[in-house]
Formats: sequence, C-alpha cells, structure tokens
Amino acid sequence: MIDLWLIGIGTGNPDHVTLEAQAALRDAALVLVPRKGPDKSDLADLRHTILRACDSPARVVEFDMPVRNEALPYGARVARWHDEIATIWAETIAAAQPDGPVALLVWGDPGLYDSTLRIAARLDPVPRLRVLPGITALQALTAAHAIPFNSVNGAVTVTTGRRLRAQGWPGAADTVVAMLDGACAFQHLDPDGLHIWWGAYLGMPEQVLDAGPLARAGPRIIDERAAARARHGWIMDTYLMRRVTPPGDAGD
Amino acid sequence: MIDLWLIGIGTGNPDHVTLEAQAALRDAALVLVPRKGPDKSDLADLRHTILRACDSPARVVEFDMPVRNEALPYGARVARWHDEIATIWAETIAAAQPDGPVALLVWGDPGLYDSTLRIAARLDPVPRLRVLPGITALQALTAAHAIPFNSVNGAVTVTTGRRLRAQGWPGAADTVVAMLDGACAFQHLDPDGLHIWWGAYLGMPEQVLDAGPLARAGPRIIDERAAARARHGWIMDTYLMRRVTPPGDAGD
Repeated sequence: MIDLWLIGIGTGNPDHVTLEAQAALRDAALVLVPRKGPDKSDLADLRHTILRACDSPARVVEFDMPVRNEALPYGARVARWHDEIATIWAETIAAAQPDGPVALLVWGDPGLYDSTLRIAARLDPVPRLRVLPGITALQALTAAHAIPFNSVNGAVTVTTGRRLRAQGWPGAADTVVAMLDGACAFQHLDPDGLHIWWGAYLGMPEQVLDAGPLARAGPRIIDERAAARARHGWIMDTYLMRRVTPPGDAGD
Repeated sequence: MIDLWLIGIGTGNPDHVTLEAQAALRDAALVLVPRKGPDKSDLADLRHTILRACDSPARVVEFDMPVRNEALPYGARVARWHDEIATIWAETIAAAQPDGPVALLVWGDPGLYDSTLRIAARLDPVPRLRVLPGITALQALTAAHAIPFNSVNGAVTVTTGRRLRAQGWPGAADTVVAMLDGACAFQHLDPDGLHIWWGAYLGMPEQVLDAGPLARAGPRIIDERAAARARHGWIMDTYLMRRVTPPGDAGD
C-alpha cells in the first residue's frame, strides 16, 4: 500500500510552510509536480523553490495536467477531469517505483476548495493518506489586511464565485468569502452597505491589496485585477465582504 | 510607535508553527503570555514549549486575564472584557519597556474567532500591527479526518455554537462548521441526512476523533466529550457537519 501525503504549502510565500510540512518534504521519497502552461510557470517554479528551501532529497517527477472537456456540463466535466488526473498519478507512481512516501504539494490547504483529496480517493488500490494542513488564501487575506474573518459571534459563508453569481448574497450572512472567482462576481451584488477586502498574489512579492465600500472599491478592483493579470499572465485572488456594522463592536 | 505582532501558532501541535512564525518569535523583543487558571495550564505550558522550540530569545512576561462580568448581556460583556485586556497589555508593555517588537502567540489563526485583533484595536496609541496566519482548528479537523472542507462548488457556513443553538441549521447550507461550542449545539438539530466529523485536542497527543451519521454519532460524541473533559480538566473541540450527498461526486 502506497503512502500518499497531501502537503499544504500556503499561498506562495515559502515562509508559510509549517515545520510539519518541512519535515514531511524531507521524508518523502517521490514528489509529483504538475507541469503548468507557460502562463503559470511562476507557480511551478515556486514548488521547486520550496523543495529546495526545505532541503528535500525526494525525487521530483513532473506530469502534464489533462485538459478539461468544456463540452461537458460542470459536474461531469470536473468528475471526468479528476478521473484522468488520478490515472496519470497512478501511472507516474508505478513508473517511478518509489521506496517511500509519495508527496503532492498543494496550494493553500488540501481541504479548502482543492481537488487533491477527491482525486486521491479515485486511486485503486486506495493509498494510505496523510493530510498536512497549510495556510490558505483566506488566512493570507485577513492577515494582510489585519482584519478578523468573522464579526463577534457572527457567521461566515465561504462560497464560490460561480454560486455568488448565480444566487446572489447568501441570505442572512453578514460576512461572505468568495473562492475560485475568475469573473468578479461581486459586481452583480447590490453594494449598498457592503465593504470589500481584496487581495491577489497573497503572500508573494507581487501581492496587491485593496479595500473599501463595495460601491467605490468594486470598479477599482476590476481594473486592478485586469491590469495585474495582463502584467503577470495569470492571477490568483480572493476577497471577503462584510455588511457594515453599526458603530460599536464587531468582535469575536 | 510600538510594533505589535499577532502570531498564529496552530492548535497545539508545535509542528504547526510556520517558518514565518518561527522567525518572528526569534526577532521579537517581548512576548506577552496570558496566565490561565490551573485547568488550562497545559495550554500555557504549550506556549512556553513553542518559544523554547523556536529558540526565541525574547523576554516573556505573563499577565493575568480579567474575569468576564457574567451579569452583563453578551455583547457588552465581551466589549468590557476586551477593554480590560487592552489596559493590561498597555500597562505590561509600558512596564517592560521593550526595545523591539512585542509579540502575542495566538491559538489557531489571529483572524478566526479570536479576539486579539479587536483588543489590539483598543490600544492608544494604535500599534503598528503585523498579523501572521496560523493553522486553525478547522484545518486540523479536516486534515485529521482527511476530508474536504467543502463539497464541489459548495458553500460552507462557519458559525458559532451559540448561533447554531439559537437559529438552527443555516438555511441552504450543505456544510456547517461550528466554533466556540461548549454545549454540543448539534444535539438540537434534526439529524436526518446529516453526517458529523468531530475532533478534540486537535493536533495534540491527546487528540480524539469521531465521525458518523449525526443520529448515531451525536450521542456518542456528547459522552466522549464529557469523559475527555473530566479527564483533562479542559477541552477544545470543533466539528463539521454535511448533508449527505446523493451517490456520485462531492468534489471541489
């Protein structure tokens, strides 16, 4: 039975790596690294930077990511894509014949809007899984803005750009965090009473931040996002929105 | 102007500390550590363990936490308590006269259901804040169970035990995470179709996990929680609940 370690490595700041992840990268025998298109080569490079910084002696094997079949509906498209990635992992591991644990470096945390766990569940035989948590984009965002994630005794809805666009502001939520939003879903909300905190390339030297009342900051962020994406060839960003609370406390 | 660093240190596993936090603990001049009652001395000890493990040369000063005035309504009680803690911080820092950054070690992440940022905002003059993200109990929970935080394109509501008890299952949510729940609020929900993943002392040697359909696992967790609390004198726990999805995928 193969030991498969899913190692959260944070959002692009090599110093977000935990001591646990550092030790695991030193103990792994094989690390699988997806080859990204040229647009995202900064990210593939970062995985290699982290492996070097951790003095990992593991063998590193790159593999090509399959292309999603855009003709399929969303759910089927994602499921098929995960099947194909699982097959590539299995073939790559079989060819490499590692004599110890196999590791995958996962952006952020392996649990949070990441498909690695779901792909691992498709392997046959099922590997012995170990999951190492990592700093997420949500945490890098709230840390960079020095804001709390939640209001005092408040609830937070973590959702996707796709859902936010389709369903609008989630009911009674006072704080909403959007993940995987490539199309600025916030622009379809009624901005009245909402404040936004946005960040791109969080934790990286390229980090860009903006914040303000959604009505004023929203259009500005759309422009900043387009400019940054054009400059770097790719972008990863996230944002938190909160109903402005009445004067007084907005505590824990 | 004082530099105040709020350093997330994870949930009790010293290996959850990030390289960034480790470096910050080495650069800090003064670390403020709250003295807990005897019941939670395990936790105060852990802070000292982490400082030693990081070779922090900082001066460590302990301070007593004020007692909450239970006669006040919830919001006022929390606000008053934060005021009092801010006063103690200011007095402790003034007495110590640090010649460099002042650090506070925060369980989990300084942004997530933690009052440290709100207390820091009460300091006068306002310090120069730096927030370092840390692994949260939510991440330690999903990693320990090797489960994803969210379903495919799904939303997650992060809420408190207090809200869950008062308001029930939040509307259309398919995943709910409860924080700060000292009274097993899950027992007041209709368990039909719900699955629970629970963990206590996450990341620590004492870690306890349980999971299953809420109808069966819920009563078991209530008993396990009471027994563990009696054994250790204190408990920190959290849980994630999800509507059981139809057969097929529950992806990202």
